[in-house]
Amino acid sequence: MSQSQLSEVLELASALIQRQSVTPEDAGCQNLMNSRLEKLGFKIEELFFTDTLNTWARKGSQSPHFCFAGHTDVVPIGDEKDWRHPPFAGLVEDGILHGRGAADMKGSLAAMVVATERFVSKHPNHQGSISFLITSDEEGPFINGTTKVVDLLEARNEKIDMCLVGEPSSRETLGDVVKNGRRGSLTGYLTVKGIQGHVAYPHLAKNPIHDVAPALTELSNKEWDTGNAFFPATSFQISNINGGTGAGNVIPGTVDVQFNFRFSTESTVEQLQDGVNSILKAHDLDYELSWTVNGLPFLTEPGELLNVTLDAIKEVTGIEANPETTGGTSDGRFIAQTGCKVIELGPVNKTIHQVDEQVCAKSLDDLALIYESILEKLLVKA
Amino acid sequence: MSQSQLSEVLELASALIQRQSVTPEDAGCQNLMNSRLEKLGFKIEELFFTDTLNTWARKGSQSPHFCFAGHTDVVPIGDEKDWRHPPFAGLVEDGILHGRGAADMKGSLAAMVVATERFVSKHPNHQGSISFLITSDEEGPFINGTTKVVDLLEARNEKIDMCLVGEPSSRETLGDVVKNGRRGSLTGYLTVKGIQGHVAYPHLAKNPIHDVAPALTELSNKEWDTGNAFFPATSFQISNINGGTGAGNVIPGTVDVQFNFRFSTESTVEQLQDGVNSILKAHDLDYELSWTVNGLPFLTEPGELLNVTLDAIKEVTGIEANPETTGGTSDGRFIAQTGCKVIELGPVNKTIHQVDEQVCAKSLDDLALIYESILEKLLVKA
Ligand SMILES: [Zn+2]
Ligand SMILES: [Zn+2]
Repeated sequence: MSQSQLSEVLELASALIQRQSVTPEDAGCQNLMNSRLEKLGFKIEELFFTDTLNTWARKGSQSPHFCFAGHTDVVPIGDEKDWRHPPFAGLVEDGILHGRGAADMKGSLAAMVVATERFVSKHPNHQGSISFLITSDEEGPFINGTTKVVDLLEARNEKIDMCLVGEPSSRETLGDVVKNGRRGSLTGYLTVKGIQGHVAYPHLAKNPIHDVAPALTELSNKEWDTGNAFFPATSFQISNINGGTGAGNVIPGTVDVQFNFRFSTESTVEQLQDGVNSILKAHDLDYELSWTVNGLPFLTEPGELLNVTLDAIKEVTGIEANPETTGGTSDGRFIAQTGCKVIELGPVNKTIHQVDEQVCAKSLDDLALIYESILEKLLVKA
Repeated sequence: MSQSQLSEVLELASALIQRQSVTPEDAGCQNLMNSRLEKLGFKIEELFFTDTLNTWARKGSQSPHFCFAGHTDVVPIGDEKDWRHPPFAGLVEDGILHGRGAADMKGSLAAMVVATERFVSKHPNHQGSISFLITSDEEGPFINGTTKVVDLLEARNEKIDMCLVGEPSSRETLGDVVKNGRRGSLTGYLTVKGIQGHVAYPHLAKNPIHDVAPALTELSNKEWDTGNAFFPATSFQISNINGGTGAGNVIPGTVDVQFNFRFSTESTVEQLQDGVNSILKAHDLDYELSWTVNGLPFLTEPGELLNVTLDAIKEVTGIEANPETTGGTSDGRFIAQTGCKVIELGPVNKTIHQVDEQVCAKSLDDLALIYESILEKLLVKA
């Protein structure tokens, strides 16, 4: 397929890939999208926080308020020599769109814009309102992105009712997986203190590695909850452990352990923290423990948004999609905290964050059809 | 006390300290000692291995063959500004000899040489033979020092019957502790393998930190032996543990654990290795384990050498010395492997390897008297 014969969706996706928006850069992506949304009657707010460009674009002021959310930033490409296609060319070859961001998530952004253009041109007087919440800080520290825009909306009491995040949710083929929630993520930073000494005089020392080992076993064996209909059981994993001076004859004075919970809606941050503290105390450890709440869990229970999404997928692709809550975190967690229903639907995620990121070109055309159908079902009613 | 009024022992100790023999340098120390021993009839062999000067000096060829062993090298001084007296001046002030090596072990070397001079001048026709085994690689990797000299002696079938190592054995006052053995030291380097993965997908990974924790608990709780009349129980200590990529969301593929045994004569290297392997296997770990035998244990059971030493200490200082086998390793372990009886006796070790290393000046004069008395008791008999 020559690049001149690309569909509207692929043409826009390719143009977005050509803008080298390695996080937290936006590199003109939002401007390209916004100039098209503006023509449809969207009111555009470009919100720049510290190093991050965000867009809040809204058409209409009525309920229901449906929002497309996503990010223009991409992860770094690594060594360009490892790529079989130039990572920022956005080439379509043999039905495949190649390039960094093709799947995560410039393809979804293009599908959202084109779907909205088609929908608005068919239904200029649709019900409710449509918005776009776009950031260039999803792949980075997510400090100056979605969370700040959400804060701003909250501050002015602007409510989103339903949100579709374009993260690449699909596993093998477009639409096989929809995320209707995400687990929470909680990280603990533990330092257990002993008394440093020489291995030849262990009675004068207290070995914190010996002391912490049984507590780590208990933490890793504990059943924190059994999950529920929508979430797998909460899991505990130690990601890092470091103790010792490097010298072979020194009993270290401290050992550092970093661990992470991926937790279901059956556990709260406080319950997990209390559980850890009670195990550490039962083992009589002298310790310091600090925490980072990376994200609270959210769940969009079956209801209009999820049903409409599953129906739209079925119509376009014939697939009965599977709602899941597994996997990492996404910006959906920030939007869900406002009480908004959030689902995530995007293309196949097999190659995201990898060399030779790519996506099936037709799946993006189909994704635009699904998005358009969702708008129809939500905002055009008899 | 002006430096001109120093005793023979202190004068020589001070002269040795002034030679800046930071390991593996000898800086002329052995030459200074050897020129004096040569005058007494010692046959001097200076043995240079790679970077290390060693001396083998022997007077006589008969049994019993008594050897003084020690080292001329010293540990680095750290930041000279932290020292209250210049570390290489060898100053005596208010009855204290100051400087790097004062206690470990140039004071002992001076006492050995002066004691031998006095003894030989009183007993030119003593029984047996006297030797000096001196290295400049005791504080370093101990590769090119005592062990190589011992190999050479073994190769030519030259046997030492009794050896006194001048390591600073005393705890509070000269002669309160004699070492009549040392524990062995065995280091293990363990790598436990898992499967690296993302903390959000623990079922696709295998966390080696979780896997190793219960094995570490069992290793640190196990009673390896209960020691014996001369040795405390064997002890196991983990000195270093490191696992994790640094990232908080990655389950690491491996964890490294370094541990050390200080072991009594009740356990062999093979028994300890077998014990570790059987625990690791019982926990079904996928692991690699390598070992370094830092030193085998040795024990000089009560007998002539120990009795004579205790008697000499009692005569000179009035103290009933306590034979012990605790503490780190010393070059005594290499000499003991030949079947030789080995004891260690030197000044108070409180300040060794520290800033402001120092030793009581009178204790070195007393040490020379003790050493001389030992020579008398062993080599002058009716
Ligand atoms: Zn993404
Ligand atoms: Zn020493």
